[in-house]
Amino acid sequence: MQYTNFDKTRAFKTLSTLAQRSLRFDYAAELTAERIRGAVAPMAGGLTYSFAAKPVATDVLAALQTLADEQELIAKYKAILDGETMNTGENRKALHHLLRGQLGKDVIFEGKNLGDFYKQELARFSRFADGVHAGTITGSTGKRFAYAVQIGIGGSDLGPRALYLALEQWAVTEGKKKLTAKFISNVDPDDASTVIASVPLEETVFVLVSKSGITQETLANELFVKEKLKAAGLDPSKHIVAVTSETSPLAHNPAYLDSFYMDDFIGGRYSSTSGVGGVILSLAFGSNAFKQILEGAHEADALALESDILKNASLLDALIGVWERNFLNFPYTAVLPYSQALSRFPAHLQQLDMESNGKRVNRSGQPVAYSTGPVVFGEPGTNGQHSFYQLLHQGTDIVPLQFIGFIESQRKDDVTVDGSGSQTKLKANLAAQIVAFAKGKTDANPNKEFTGKRPSSLIFGKRLTPHALGALLAHFENKIMFQGLVWNINSFDQEGVQLGKALTKKVLAGNAGDAALDAYSRLLDI
Amino acid sequence: MQYTNFDKTRAFKTLSTLAQRSLRFDYAAELTAERIRGAVAPMAGGLTYSFAAKPVATDVLAALQTLADEQELIAKYKAILDGETMNTGENRKALHHLLRGQLGKDVIFEGKNLGDFYKQELARFSRFADGVHAGTITGSTGKRFAYAVQIGIGGSDLGPRALYLALEQWAVTEGKKKLTAKFISNVDPDDASTVIASVPLEETVFVLVSKSGITQETLANELFVKEKLKAAGLDPSKHIVAVTSETSPLAHNPAYLDSFYMDDFIGGRYSSTSGVGGVILSLAFGSNAFKQILEGAHEADALALESDILKNASLLDALIGVWERNFLNFPYTAVLPYSQALSRFPAHLQQLDMESNGKRVNRSGQPVAYSTGPVVFGEPGTNGQHSFYQLLHQGTDIVPLQFIGFIESQRKDDVTVDGSGSQTKLKANLAAQIVAFAKGKTDANPNKEFTGKRPSSLIFGKRLTPHALGALLAHFENKIMFQGLVWNINSFDQEGVQLGKALTKKVLAGNAGDAALDAYSRLLDI
Repeated sequence: MQYTNFDKTRAFKTLSTLAQRSLRFDYAAELTAERIRGAVAPMAGGLTYSFAAKPVATDVLAALQTLADEQELIAKYKAILDGETMNTGENRKALHHLLRGQLGKDVIFEGKNLGDFYKQELARFSRFADGVHAGTITGSTGKRFAYAVQIGIGGSDLGPRALYLALEQWAVTEGKKKLTAKFISNVDPDDASTVIASVPLEETVFVLVSKSGITQETLANELFVKEKLKAAGLDPSKHIVAVTSETSPLAHNPAYLDSFYMDDFIGGRYSSTSGVGGVILSLAFGSNAFKQILEGAHEADALALESDILKNASLLDALIGVWERNFLNFPYTAVLPYSQALSRFPAHLQQLDMESNGKRVNRSGQPVAYSTGPVVFGEPGTNGQHSFYQLLHQGTDIVPLQFIGFIESQRKDDVTVDGSGSQTKLKANLAAQIVAFAKGKTDANPNKEFTGKRPSSLIFGKRLTPHALGALLAHFENKIMFQGLVWNINSFDQEGVQLGKALTKKVLAGNAGDAALDAYSRLLDI
Repeated sequence: MQYTNFDKTRAFKTLSTLAQRSLRFDYAAELTAERIRGAVAPMAGGLTYSFAAKPVATDVLAALQTLADEQELIAKYKAILDGETMNTGENRKALHHLLRGQLGKDVIFEGKNLGDFYKQELARFSRFADGVHAGTITGSTGKRFAYAVQIGIGGSDLGPRALYLALEQWAVTEGKKKLTAKFISNVDPDDASTVIASVPLEETVFVLVSKSGITQETLANELFVKEKLKAAGLDPSKHIVAVTSETSPLAHNPAYLDSFYMDDFIGGRYSSTSGVGGVILSLAFGSNAFKQILEGAHEADALALESDILKNASLLDALIGVWERNFLNFPYTAVLPYSQALSRFPAHLQQLDMESNGKRVNRSGQPVAYSTGPVVFGEPGTNGQHSFYQLLHQGTDIVPLQFIGFIESQRKDDVTVDGSGSQTKLKANLAAQIVAFAKGKTDANPNKEFTGKRPSSLIFGKRLTPHALGALLAHFENKIMFQGLVWNINSFDQEGVQLGKALTKKVLAGNAGDAALDAYSRLLDI
């Protein structure tokens, strides 16, 4: 296998040549009913990826297939699955796929079969959640737990929180909601103080999540929680479980009711399908619901092995994103779910994408000469339509769009106004926006003119269930992985977070002679 | 007064010439203690704008002052204050400043003094809130209201929601929290269904907000609420107040407990300081707290009249943004509050900025040949540090940053770990990030290298109070207004939302022969 910088590939040259022509992609003419029916790729979890409104004609798709083949994307994905050291910077494997099921070789590390280890931890925290639901595991007064509060930041917060919100109303509707979950992440003391004040501590289990066990924010918030528990006359060791690595100070520690483990091969932003997401989601919705997320994700992982890009939605999505980023020169992507349940899913994707692929050096540490990961942002539709869509439609720059929508609502509680239900209106808005962005509208008044030519893709399915959500999550994880492989960067480290941490320590230690740190510290009265 | 396209000004040429030199702005050398102390502009509400870490040397600042003078920004602002027709596309005034107090001439429209009208409505909804708090205004069973639920979308949602969240913990701490507020915005039926199920309807007052009275999402959600109220045996006319214009179908309507009015001169995204934000915020925190927001905003509006850019923070912020957008070619801005209370403030600014200045034609409707409003996104620090900051530090592109922070927390509930409290850690992280972004760090391993040169500004103050929040809000409103005036665009209309609305109607009416709409409707099973 060859690891080659993107701009050294033959496909790069082909795509560069094609780019000028495709800038003139005629959306109005191309967006036929036939293309809309045909330009779809199946996804796991009953989802479908529609790319009709992306500026990719047959020649571009052929060149993207060549790129996938030339960069050996499937072979490299298989290497990840087989446990090769793909996180080159930190000399680590990237094994989040193995959390969902095995698609490659057995991964043995220091004599341990890691697939077995992940399965064992899944079984352990499933049993723990079952015990909480059965009332055999309780807090220090013997009262049942009704609330679960996650203490974690970054990957220990955004993914689990987005998934919790994505399924809360599904669970209520299906009679599967067991505990109410809340989240403490920020070191801002107002965050912890507010959340703690909003739950009955006697009935609350805290899920303390830090792989390293030394995350500054999380440890500060842990102490915050412990002091409040003590002040309420409760025993913290009966109210906190830890999710961490076995080498962390939190591991095998009698200060916690129980501890569940992952390892260094599960990156924070890829840890939603480990105990990092699994403990809180199993507590909230039952261990079966979490296992359905894993099944959906595993199906998506299996589908991502397909080498024909038209049959591999995450690969195709990745390549179209590269086309837009490197040849059409769009520096951002908006994620627009037409689903209130996915209100925080864009924030999770923002981390997943920007932290994975916001890199300026290749996997060997050499600066690259092309753009890598874009800025990702988004809010649910239809809300965004009444907000930033103005710029998306009529701004001076073009922002590629990723729509997500479902045929049915989660709660199945609806109202008919003017002959249609709200869910139908939601979908009508979604269909209308795709066409409006693509085709635009001429008008004698330029202020009312829409230039169109604004590319979008659409992921849709029947209803947002745990199974569909798992597939959706893994789709994006794999998309981002494939893009990182095209760009020949390491999508699995995050050296960019280190400098801020180091300087924060300096500030807290009195600045150690850095005049700028000292001056800003004075402004902020530190 | 002359309205001139930006690229026709003399300052545009000067700034173009300066741009090449400033791309080499030496952050490490420039970011001295003296510059950090000196490069500050006072704001209203006790806030300060620090621009030390922005790539503006003395020559650039001088050119920006020339630009402000040449584009007659202060004179044009005065024209807005005096009620001239600045929303040229819709032939309307832009009078949100007048909601906070009068700084210009009396504005008379169709014989009515609009300043008096706004004051009268403020007094009316203040009395209404006072009555609710006193228990003299109740729901249909006579029980006191404990919850207020806003039904609105876009400007009727994002601003009021952001402000509510910004002050909720302040109010709890100061003993001023009266009612708990919730918000229904999305036409997704899961949104309304979930919020309605979460409140005791008997104790809930709904605030229905639509200036036109014909917003599709809001009317659908109104019916949702009415049906649930009826099903609970309650009289909707005793549980809903309307905030609308006097010409809307919602006005003077006995279907509502009361109605409060604004007019077409208050744009949705600029309406937080009208009844749109005022009713719900007065209900939640008392009418005095809302008046303190107005006072802070009014002070900021007065300060924005200053013609020296170094004494006018919103003008300076605007001009630095133009410098970054048009000459340093950065297409986005991240808003990063180090304050959990401001968790949704970036979403409000995203609307305020992108909907106001995401325009490709000038105020006369002619296409412009330069970039206008940037993409705006953001999340609270320190959360973002563990997420998308990777790209901000080490991505291939540069994203200008707007930090916001406060010296004290809102709840004043803190915990000491490793010798410092969480609020101190929060501030230490903020100071560290500014310096890390600006100065970077060299390293023998390029993967651990930070190129620095990532510009940021900082707005800071003592504590996030209603007064400070009003000043913060108006700062950004005025910043965006000044940028629109530099670009010679109309920041007060939003024609870009119309096409999607029109096509949605087509879909709901059966597509009317548009093959693309029809094909997408089939995909989504409409």
